[in-house]
Amino acid sequence: MPASRVLARAAIRALPRRALTPSVARAAAVPRASASASVSATQLGTSVRHGSTLPPRHSEFTKPTAEHIKDLRAILSAPTSLLSTLDGTATEDELASFNDDWMNKYHGKGPIVVKPRTTEEVSKVMKYCYEKGLAIVPQGGNTGLVGGSNPVHDEIILNLTNLNQIRSFDPVSGVLVADAGVILEAADHHLAEKGFIFPLDLGAKGSCHIGGNVATNAGGLRLLRYGSLHGSVLGLEVVLPDGTIWEGLSKLRKDNTGFDIKQLFIGSEGTIGIITAISILCPRRPSAMNVAVFSLPSYEAVQKVYAEAKGQLGEILSAFEFFDRQSYALVKKHQEENGGERKVFETEGDFYCLIETGGSNAEHDEAKLSALLEHLMENEMVLDGVLAQDSTQFQSLWQLRELVPESAGKAGSVYKYDVSVPVGKMYSLVEKMRTKLREGGVLEEDGRPEGPIRAVAGYGHMGDGNLHINIVANKYTDDVEKIIEPYIYEIVAENEGSISAEHGLGVMKAPYIGYSKNETSIEMMKKIKHLFDPKGLLNPYKYIV
Amino acid sequence: MPASRVLARAAIRALPRRALTPSVARAAAVPRASASASVSATQLGTSVRHGSTLPPRHSEFTKPTAEHIKDLRAILSAPTSLLSTLDGTATEDELASFNDDWMNKYHGKGPIVVKPRTTEEVSKVMKYCYEKGLAIVPQGGNTGLVGGSNPVHDEIILNLTNLNQIRSFDPVSGVLVADAGVILEAADHHLAEKGFIFPLDLGAKGSCHIGGNVATNAGGLRLLRYGSLHGSVLGLEVVLPDGTIWEGLSKLRKDNTGFDIKQLFIGSEGTIGIITAISILCPRRPSAMNVAVFSLPSYEAVQKVYAEAKGQLGEILSAFEFFDRQSYALVKKHQEENGGERKVFETEGDFYCLIETGGSNAEHDEAKLSALLEHLMENEMVLDGVLAQDSTQFQSLWQLRELVPESAGKAGSVYKYDVSVPVGKMYSLVEKMRTKLREGGVLEEDGRPEGPIRAVAGYGHMGDGNLHINIVANKYTDDVEKIIEPYIYEIVAENEGSISAEHGLGVMKAPYIGYSKNETSIEMMKKIKHLFDPKGLLNPYKYIV
Repeated sequence: MPASRVLARAAIRALPRRALTPSVARAAAVPRASASASVSATQLGTSVRHGSTLPPRHSEFTKPTAEHIKDLRAILSAPTSLLSTLDGTATEDELASFNDDWMNKYHGKGPIVVKPRTTEEVSKVMKYCYEKGLAIVPQGGNTGLVGGSNPVHDEIILNLTNLNQIRSFDPVSGVLVADAGVILEAADHHLAEKGFIFPLDLGAKGSCHIGGNVATNAGGLRLLRYGSLHGSVLGLEVVLPDGTIWEGLSKLRKDNTGFDIKQLFIGSEGTIGIITAISILCPRRPSAMNVAVFSLPSYEAVQKVYAEAKGQLGEILSAFEFFDRQSYALVKKHQEENGGERKVFETEGDFYCLIETGGSNAEHDEAKLSALLEHLMENEMVLDGVLAQDSTQFQSLWQLRELVPESAGKAGSVYKYDVSVPVGKMYSLVEKMRTKLREGGVLEEDGRPEGPIRAVAGYGHMGDGNLHINIVANKYTDDVEKIIEPYIYEIVAENEGSISAEHGLGVMKAPYIGYSKNETSIEMMKKIKHLFDPKGLLNPYKYIV
Repeated sequence: MPASRVLARAAIRALPRRALTPSVARAAAVPRASASASVSATQLGTSVRHGSTLPPRHSEFTKPTAEHIKDLRAILSAPTSLLSTLDGTATEDELASFNDDWMNKYHGKGPIVVKPRTTEEVSKVMKYCYEKGLAIVPQGGNTGLVGGSNPVHDEIILNLTNLNQIRSFDPVSGVLVADAGVILEAADHHLAEKGFIFPLDLGAKGSCHIGGNVATNAGGLRLLRYGSLHGSVLGLEVVLPDGTIWEGLSKLRKDNTGFDIKQLFIGSEGTIGIITAISILCPRRPSAMNVAVFSLPSYEAVQKVYAEAKGQLGEILSAFEFFDRQSYALVKKHQEENGGERKVFETEGDFYCLIETGGSNAEHDEAKLSALLEHLMENEMVLDGVLAQDSTQFQSLWQLRELVPESAGKAGSVYKYDVSVPVGKMYSLVEKMRTKLREGGVLEEDGRPEGPIRAVAGYGHMGDGNLHINIVANKYTDDVEKIIEPYIYEIVAENEGSISAEHGLGVMKAPYIGYSKNETSIEMMKKIKHLFDPKGLLNPYKYIV
């Protein structure tokens, strides 16, 4: 090995074990993302969502009654498949986890939860509701961030938890067929045993359902490598609003026999049908994985490192994430509160980035990564860097990025935004947002701790141009929301961005769709919604209204 | 380098320069695929397509007249943008290349060709035709194989050739925005200069348009690596049947604000709108590329080599193609007729496969490929193999696979089929087809040269489960066609395959869609077609009828 390479390796420190906080180490012992997903809504601080901005109940929808419960019970095979406050099989508190969203920001009043055990049961429930004019909200893991998976009013909650079987996996083609209610992490564990990987990974993997992932077109941490679900999903089984089962579970990688109708359901957020099973192409699991985290002086430096990483790591680059000083401060505070030592970097910076590689040859991958690290250090492109030495450190370094949303939630009530803009302009949105809040007099800053906003943290998926802005407040208030919205959507639109890169529209962003879609698009969307769901019973008040 | 590795390299021979035929060497001097695409229809042998199986003209469509020409000329900026037999600006012969398909199998009688120069002109032409009830066939490079891009009767041919500008390319994101009429090879050349690659490659690249590629959801040679266009296309500009321009040219990798409507147009074969521009995510061009070709004793051996290649080459595997003895015989004959020496393999086999790698580090890639070759030789998994030593040999080895369709065309009139089935069952379809033709008494075999069928060649994209069957006949006849169809579709359906993996439906396969799609799917397709094109004017008689 050439001397310069040794030098670079020495300069990029191996992460010493003592630098890991106990809390991080503990978190790393459980599957990486579960820590984040297991936070209950109440842990995230008090929250009030003022109902004034939500759309009123549609008077044409039938109100659910005890009579409907009787009929629905006759359809369902198990008595536990229906819970309701109307017949005393559940209390309001017991239905809260179905009616409230993960952030405890949106609160529905659905009196009936139905949990069918088969696609046929889903079909019968849908047919019944269609005939009776009962509105339905489909629900997976209920981990969404835009109020899309819980009721707005009294919609019947059709929860997919009991559809949770892996149907088949073919190791020759890599095609997995599984029920919609399979938890993402469970699907990935199943694949790991066979040497494959689910082509999607995200913080909520311990709770979210693969059906919900497809219905919301989830993006996550490795889209950079494995691409969009529009490319990897091969087929779907969907129950249409009138109860018709569409059997579209193709296992073929190529099939040009007509409109690719399944694509409409990917990202449709449960508005035109309920996905009951998916068929998805899974890549081989990389046999070698590495992760390194760097502190950097500026957003410009992050961009330069990104360009270098793309060029030098090429096909083995599997993630490039960034987070800012405020994001890192939230994580450190959260880890401190859990009693941990926290020093990771000798020199901290205004920005941080995480680089992951995944390949089929450990020696080659290490050589490529070493060459990159050497280049970054020699050219003083980073302030400091640490490279994971084992799988525990691998998890711990990922936690620095993945704990950002959870840490923000621990610090207060969080206004969460998720936008796409060109990479070069991404961070300017965070800066503009801070300025706007400062002008609005609500920003808590050093020496002025009176403001209701404690932090404005920016982080996200560099490779996808996907920025997350978390605005941490003392509590949710209309006044603060009015300063943020629609301003944030306006600055996204100015940059021809998307007001929802991956979270979807739900109830939160439905009114703002015009910032990202033109009139012709919205018109086409309405026509498609009407074509599939002429009575508008499926996930109403959301998405396209 | 360990001794065993040197041994393997010696065993897998470097392709000696003398093994290259002059014709291959010549072909390699021009861009690889152009040779194939430049074959004119008449070179492919005599052809008769009996009109009896084609649908009759729809009486409700308006017949094009000289009056319409006058109106259309007023819309178009240049006099040369309209050619017609009705006003003497073109002869029937001059319109033949627009009316006939590439195989000279389908012959339309469109009296008017319109070649707009801007999206606005396309819009005005569409609006005019919509109001007048004139049917339209959109046409790109007219390289399709299912009669989808030429008229069936007297439809107005709307040819996109003049929409041929690259609009923008962003080297940070890799997003290319270009007019629909840009030739695939031109787009790729443009990208090559910037160090990027178009995420699609196919034989007709020298003639086909990128708009047509998207409209037909082309698959091609590197889908294995770069995935489907459903994943890489980011946005589209489309003129709808009534002339409305849908501006959906997003450059964002992530955008979850509503139904992903562009997906409907990908693979819609011009039936619900005319794509006038595309926005597509292009990966970095691999800096190192290798190709090796092997002879093998059996289809089982091909499958084993495929599994090994996937495992050992991992992320650098960029193509895995196979072809059978009859395919190779056609190519050899074609090369012989061009006066070339032809010996490539010391030991020929019943099967051949081509493996391509593309990566960012030549040294690493070579090491991975060497290890694979060593393994294949040591375990006697292949009969013989050659590895390209330079870019000319790289092109020449690719020609062994890419010349198959052209060589078949030179040998007679070709019935071309393109199906998807699980990889393990793929080749059994070729064998069943041969048996069927033998039973029908039409197969020319050694010692019985009287049959109208000269060869049944099987080849295709192993990684995608995509098999091409080329049945080479003396001439197209109804009798032979009746032996082949619908039998071939039946055996595909038995294996839950697709009757069109990548060629599309066009006029050829529209009647057979039921072999690949169920009633619910077909019903949804009809509704979508009607939603976008209520008068049914766009590319009638095809796709969904």
